[in-house]
Amino acid sequence: MRPSGRQPDQPREVTLTRGFTRHAEGSVLVSFGDTQVLCNASVEAGVPRWLRGKNQGWVTAEYGMLPRATHTRGGREAARGKQGGRTLEIQRLIGRSLRAAVDLKKLGEFTITVDCDVLQADGGTRTASITGACVALIEALQYMQRKKMIKTDPFRQLVSSISVGVYKGTPVLDLDYPEDSAADTDMNVVMTEDGKLIEVQGTAEAEAFSRAELNGMLDLAESGCQALFAKQHEALGIRR
Amino acid sequence: MRPSGRQPDQPREVTLTRGFTRHAEGSVLVSFGDTQVLCNASVEAGVPRWLRGKNQGWVTAEYGMLPRATHTRGGREAARGKQGGRTLEIQRLIGRSLRAAVDLKKLGEFTITVDCDVLQADGGTRTASITGACVALIEALQYMQRKKMIKTDPFRQLVSSISVGVYKGTPVLDLDYPEDSAADTDMNVVMTEDGKLIEVQGTAEAEAFSRAELNGMLDLAESGCQALFAKQHEALGIRR
Amino acid sequence: MRPSGRQPDQPREVTLTRGFTRHAEGSVLVSFGDTQVLCNASVEAGVPRWLRGKNQGWVTAEYGMLPRATHTRGGREAARGKQGGRTLEIQRLIGRSLRAAVDLKKLGEFTITVDCDVLQADGGTRTASITGACVALIEALQYMQRKKMIKTDPFRQLVSSISVGVYKGTPVLDLDYPEDSAADTDMNVVMTEDGKLIEVQGTAEAEAFSRAELNGMLDLAESGCQALFAKQHEALGIRR
Amino acid sequence: MRPSGRQPDQPREVTLTRGFTRHAEGSVLVSFGDTQVLCNASVEAGVPRWLRGKNQGWVTAEYGMLPRATHTRGGREAARGKQGGRTLEIQRLIGRSLRAAVDLKKLGEFTITVDCDVLQADGGTRTASITGACVALIEALQYMQRKKMIKTDPFRQLVSSISVGVYKGTPVLDLDYPEDSAADTDMNVVMTEDGKLIEVQGTAEAEAFSRAELNGMLDLAESGCQALFAKQHEALGIRR
Amino acid sequence: MRPSGRQPDQPREVTLTRGFTRHAEGSVLVSFGDTQVLCNASVEAGVPRWLRGKNQGWVTAEYGMLPRATHTRGGREAARGKQGGRTLEIQRLIGRSLRAAVDLKKLGEFTITVDCDVLQADGGTRTASITGACVALIEALQYMQRKKMIKTDPFRQLVSSISVGVYKGTPVLDLDYPEDSAADTDMNVVMTEDGKLIEVQGTAEAEAFSRAELNGMLDLAESGCQALFAKQHEALGIRR
Amino acid sequence: MRPSGRQPDQPREVTLTRGFTRHAEGSVLVSFGDTQVLCNASVEAGVPRWLRGKNQGWVTAEYGMLPRATHTRGGREAARGKQGGRTLEIQRLIGRSLRAAVDLKKLGEFTITVDCDVLQADGGTRTASITGACVALIEALQYMQRKKMIKTDPFRQLVSSISVGVYKGTPVLDLDYPEDSAADTDMNVVMTEDGKLIEVQGTAEAEAFSRAELNGMLDLAESGCQALFAKQHEALGIRR
Repeated sequence: MRPSGRQPDQPREVTLTRGFTRHAEGSVLVSFGDTQVLCNASVEAGVPRWLRGKNQGWVTAEYGMLPRATHTRGGREAARGKQGGRTLEIQRLIGRSLRAAVDLKKLGEFTITVDCDVLQADGGTRTASITGACVALIEALQYMQRKKMIKTDPFRQLVSSISVGVYKGTPVLDLDYPEDSAADTDMNVVMTEDGKLIEVQGTAEAEAFSRAELNGMLDLAESGCQALFAKQHEALGIRR
Repeated sequence: MRPSGRQPDQPREVTLTRGFTRHAEGSVLVSFGDTQVLCNASVEAGVPRWLRGKNQGWVTAEYGMLPRATHTRGGREAARGKQGGRTLEIQRLIGRSLRAAVDLKKLGEFTITVDCDVLQADGGTRTASITGACVALIEALQYMQRKKMIKTDPFRQLVSSISVGVYKGTPVLDLDYPEDSAADTDMNVVMTEDGKLIEVQGTAEAEAFSRAELNGMLDLAESGCQALFAKQHEALGIRR
Repeated sequence: MRPSGRQPDQPREVTLTRGFTRHAEGSVLVSFGDTQVLCNASVEAGVPRWLRGKNQGWVTAEYGMLPRATHTRGGREAARGKQGGRTLEIQRLIGRSLRAAVDLKKLGEFTITVDCDVLQADGGTRTASITGACVALIEALQYMQRKKMIKTDPFRQLVSSISVGVYKGTPVLDLDYPEDSAADTDMNVVMTEDGKLIEVQGTAEAEAFSRAELNGMLDLAESGCQALFAKQHEALGIRR
Repeated sequence: MRPSGRQPDQPREVTLTRGFTRHAEGSVLVSFGDTQVLCNASVEAGVPRWLRGKNQGWVTAEYGMLPRATHTRGGREAARGKQGGRTLEIQRLIGRSLRAAVDLKKLGEFTITVDCDVLQADGGTRTASITGACVALIEALQYMQRKKMIKTDPFRQLVSSISVGVYKGTPVLDLDYPEDSAADTDMNVVMTEDGKLIEVQGTAEAEAFSRAELNGMLDLAESGCQALFAKQHEALGIRR
Repeated sequence: MRPSGRQPDQPREVTLTRGFTRHAEGSVLVSFGDTQVLCNASVEAGVPRWLRGKNQGWVTAEYGMLPRATHTRGGREAARGKQGGRTLEIQRLIGRSLRAAVDLKKLGEFTITVDCDVLQADGGTRTASITGACVALIEALQYMQRKKMIKTDPFRQLVSSISVGVYKGTPVLDLDYPEDSAADTDMNVVMTEDGKLIEVQGTAEAEAFSRAELNGMLDLAESGCQALFAKQHEALGIRR
Repeated sequence: MRPSGRQPDQPREVTLTRGFTRHAEGSVLVSFGDTQVLCNASVEAGVPRWLRGKNQGWVTAEYGMLPRATHTRGGREAARGKQGGRTLEIQRLIGRSLRAAVDLKKLGEFTITVDCDVLQADGGTRTASITGACVALIEALQYMQRKKMIKTDPFRQLVSSISVGVYKGTPVLDLDYPEDSAADTDMNVVMTEDGKLIEVQGTAEAEAFSRAELNGMLDLAESGCQALFAKQHEALGIRR
C-alpha cells in the first residue's frame, strides 16, 4: 500500500504549463503531483572558454530549491555562500540529460542554460526538472529558428525522466516524498522515446538490490517515461 | 506619456494569491503587473544568538531573484558564492519593514523568516515583496495562534510599500521597468495604514530633486499605499 | 536634552584635513565630532568592463571600518571572508552620491575610487564619509587637470551629507552614537548646494514618523548641509 | 581492440597495499593499473550534529585529487576555494557505498572518515577508491576492537566497485583513461559479495544504451567485482 | 648612497603616539618615517576554544593595509573575500612576537587582540607594527590592572623589531620602500631588551648572503632595536 | 637525549625517489625519516599576467597536506574553502627558495609549478619539500631541454633546506615532530652548495635565543645541507 493510495505502476498527475514566465526563451512550469519546478531556458551568444572555436554550441543546466519548497525551511544556498553537493550533482545530471536531446554541432556558438528552480518539493524534483526542462529547451530552439539564429533544427530526440524504487519490498513508480524517504532502493532513470537509456542512477538506501529487482524497476520506468513523452508531445502540440 | 499608457497616479494591477505553496506557514504570490514575487513565511523555534534570553521573537526576510526573472539572464548568486550588495540591501529593507508590523515581545522566542523570491521582474520587486510578505507574515501569525504557539496576537499594523518617481519631469506612481531605468528620481516608500512612514528611500538617478518634488511623490505614495491596504484586507478577509 | 548637551539644530564640530596621507591623488581626514574617516581618492586608467568604449569615466567608493573603530571590537571583514550587508549598502550610497558631483562624460576613461575607512566611529560614519569623500574627489580631479589627464573640469557641484532623526520626540541634527542607537527615526540626507536632494533615506527605528516630522527633519538637514558646504569650501580654498 | 590490448572482460592489475602510512587507523594504497589512490580511515569520537543522541555512528568519505595526478595539471581545489561538483559527487558516492559495509548501530557514537586521495589518475578513480576504502575501513574497525572502543564487530559485508562501459560498440570492463574519454557509455557499479547491487550509475556519453547493453555491462561488472573481493580478502588475510 | 641620504646604520625617525583613538584599551600610532600604522589593542573576556579551561590567556594580532596606503591602490581584502598570504604571514609574525612580551598564565582567561592597520606604507610595515603593537599591548595590560581584571602584571619584556638588508652590497638599517624593493637581502629581526632574538627572518631577494653578511646585519639590528626600546620607554613614561 | 636517540648533529635518513608518479615533468618522493612529501613539477606555457611580455619565466610552488598525514586528522582545506595561513606561508617559502635555483631569464615564457603534497608528516615538512622540490624542478628543466622547449640550461645552483633548533638547551639538527613541538627555538635554513644562505627563519618558541645559539644552529644547518646536497647529486646522477 503506497501512502498516496496509488497503484505500484501509477505515476502522479503530471502537468506541463508553457509560457509560465515572460522573459525566458523557453519557460515551463512542470508538476509531478505536489512537486513543482519552474524551468526557464535562456539563449545566450557564445560558448564556455574551453569550447571556443570548435564550431558548436553548449547546453547546460542550473538547479536550485527555494528555501521553503520543503516541509521545513532549508538554508538559502546564496546566503551560505555555496551550492551543496546534492545541488551540483543534480544540475550536472540535468545538463547531461538535456545534451542528449540536442545536436550541439547544429546549435552554433550559442549556449542554452536551463534554470530549474523548485517552487515546491514532494519527491522527484530531479526527474520533474529533466522532463520539464526538455520542453523549455525545445521552446528555446523554436525561438532561435523563428529569430533565424540557426538554420537547421538541432533537436534530436525527447528525453524524459522518472524515479522508481523498491518500497516495502515492491517496485513502485514515481516516488513521492514519504515513499522516497522510506524506500529500500531509489533509482532515477532518463530515457529516450525509443526506450533507450541516457542515465540510470540506482542507490540502495537500506538494502542491496538484486538484478531481478533492477529489471522490475526498469520495466516500470519504461512505462512511466512513455506516459511522460505523451505529455511532452501534448504540451508541444506535436502530433505523435 | 507613460510607456504603459497609465495615468501618473495609476498603479498597476495588484493581486495577492494566498496559499500559493503548501509547506510554508504563510505563502502569498504577489503581483504588481508583470512583477511576481513568491513570499513564503516560515516559523521556527528559537531566535538569533544575540536575542536569546530576552523573551522576544524575531522577524527577518531573505530576498532572491530567479536567474531568468529578468530580461536577460543574471548569474545565480548561489553559484557566484555570495549575495550581491543590492540583494542584501533589499532584504534588510524588507526585514525592517516587517518588524514594524509586529510586536516582537508578544511573539515569544520564535523566528519568522519571510523568503521573497522574484519569479518575474518588471520593476518594483522590493515594494511588491514588502506588500506580499506582510500578508504572508499575518498568515503565519494566524497559524501560530491556531497551533497555540502564542497566546496573544502579535500583529500591530499593516505595512505596504510602493515606488514613486519623477519620470520625464512628472511624478508618477508604481514605476515599471522601462520607467524605472529612465527615471530622474526613484523613491520607495513604506507606510502604515494611518499614513505614517516606515521607510523613505529616495535616490536622484539623473537630476537632484526638490522638496516640492519630494512632497509630490509622497502624496502619490500615500494614495498608492491606501489602495494596497485595501487589497491586503481583501486577501486576508478582514472587514476594514 | 541631547546626551552631548547640544541644541537640536547644532551639529558636531567638523574638520576636513587635506593631504592626510601622501600617496593618494586625494586624501582627506574628515571628523564629525569623534567620528573620524580617512577618505582616499585613487585615479586609475580604465573603466569597469560594462562601461568600456562608452567614452566616459566612473566614480565609485569602498567603505570599511577598522575593527576597533567601535566601542567593542568588531570582526575584520577580510578575515570573515566577506563584506557585510551594511558595508555594501553604505558604499553603494557613497558611490551614488559622489557621482552626482561629477560629469562622467568629461572624466574620460578613468575610474576614481574613493576609499572611506573609518578610524573611529561615533555615529554618522556614512554622512561624514560622503562629505569628506567629496573633497578628496575634487582634489583628485585637480590632480588630473594638473597632470593634463583631462582637458575640462568634470566637477559639477558639491555634495554633502548629514543625519537627522527624531530623538525623544524632537527632531535633532547630526546624531552621535548614543542618540543614533536610541532614536525613534534615523534619516540620512545628501544634498547639493542649491538645496536639492540627492538621497533621502529615512527609517522608523521604533515609531512610524509623520509627514510633518519628515519636513522638520529635512529643514534641519538643509541647514546642516549648508554649514558643511562652508567647511568644504574652506578646505578647498574656494571663495564661495 | 582496447588501447591497452586487454580482453573486453579483463580488468587491470589490482594491488591493495595495507599500512601505507603510519598515523591513520586504516591506510591502504590501492592501484587499478596506473590509477593509485591512498585511502586513509580516521576514527574520531562523536557524530555529526544531526545524529547526536541517536546511539549510532557515522561513516563518511572525502575525495581529492593531487593537482598533478592527471596528464595536465589541474588547479588545487583548496586554492580555488571550493570543491568542484565532480569531487562532491564522488565523495558522496564513496560514503554511501561504505555505509553499506557497516552496521552503524554497532559502531557507537564514533565517526569514521575515509580520505581517498588520488596520487595518480588513469580512469576509474572512484571505483578504486571504494574498493580500497572498504579495506581501510575494515582495518579501522579492527583497530577499534583491539582498543576496546566497540564491543561487537560492526562489519556487515564487503563492497567493491568497478567501471564498465561500451567502447567502440563492445562492453568492456575496468576502463582506463583512454577508453573512458572515448566510451559511448560509462557505468560505475558497486556490489556486495552475494552479487547484489549497492549503486548503479550509468551514463550515455555519446549514444543511448539499450537494456541488452545494460545487462551485458552488469554481467561484466559482476565478474569484475568477484575478482576484487578476492583481492580484498587476500589483503585482509581473511580466509574466504 | 642610500636613496634617502641616510647613513647605513641610521634608522628613520620614529614616533609612538599613544591614545590615537578613544575606544581601544590600547591605541598607538607608530611611524617609522613615512610608514604609519595604527595599533589598537582590544581586551575581550574568554580565550579561543582550544585554550579553554587551561587557565591562561591569549594574545594575537590582525594586520591589514588600507587600500591606498601604497603608491598604487591595492584591492581591498574584504572585497576580494580573503586575506592574502602576505597578510596572514605578517599577522602570524606579529602575534608570535607579542606573545614573547607577556606571561600568558598571568593574563587569566582573556584575549588581547592587537589590530595593526597600515594607514601609509613606505617599507617596514611589519617591524613598525610589532614595535607599536607592543606599546599598545602594555597600555591594555595597564588598563586591565586599573580595572582589577588581573591581579599581577603579565608583562615580561619589551619586544621591538627592525628591518636590515644588504643594499648595493652594503648592510643597511631600517629599509624604506625604494631600498626594500631593490635590496639583495631583506631581513626582519625581533629582539628583546637584553639583546636576545625572538624572530630572525632573512630572505635572499637577488643574491644568497654569507654568514659574515648575516652577522653584519644582526649587529645593525641590535643597535636599531636598542634605539626603539628607548622610544618605547619614552612613550610609556617608564624610567629605564 | 633526543627522543629518537639521534646525536645532536645527526639528521634523519633521507631518500629521494625519482619518477614516483608518471604524468609530471618532474616527480620526486622525498622522505626525511617518517616525513614523506610528493613533489611534482609541472611545466606550463605562459607566465602570470604581471610577468607577461618581460621575456622571462616563473617558478612557483603549492603546498598541501593530506588530511591524515598527521597524528590526528586535520580538516581538508578544499572543504573548508580556503588555504590556511601556515599553508600559504610555507608555499611562499618554497617558491622563493626554488627561484634561487633557476635563472628565470633563461626559462622563457614558461611557468613551472612544483606541488609539494605531504603524504605523511613527522616534522620538517617544509625543509623536506624544498629539498625534494629542487630535484623535481631540475628533472623538469631536463625535460624541457630534451623537448627543445629551451635552448640553454636555466639551472643555477642546488638549494637544500633543513631545520635546526634548541631542544632542552642543546642545538640539534633536523627536528622530528616530538622535538619540534617541545623545542625552545625552531629555525629553518635554506642554503646553496657554496654555503651561502637563501632563507633563515628562526623563531623563539619558548625562550629568546642568543647570537651564540644562532651561530651554533647555523653551523649544524651547514653540515646538514651539505649532506642533503650529496643526496640530491646522487639522485640526479650528477658527479659532484
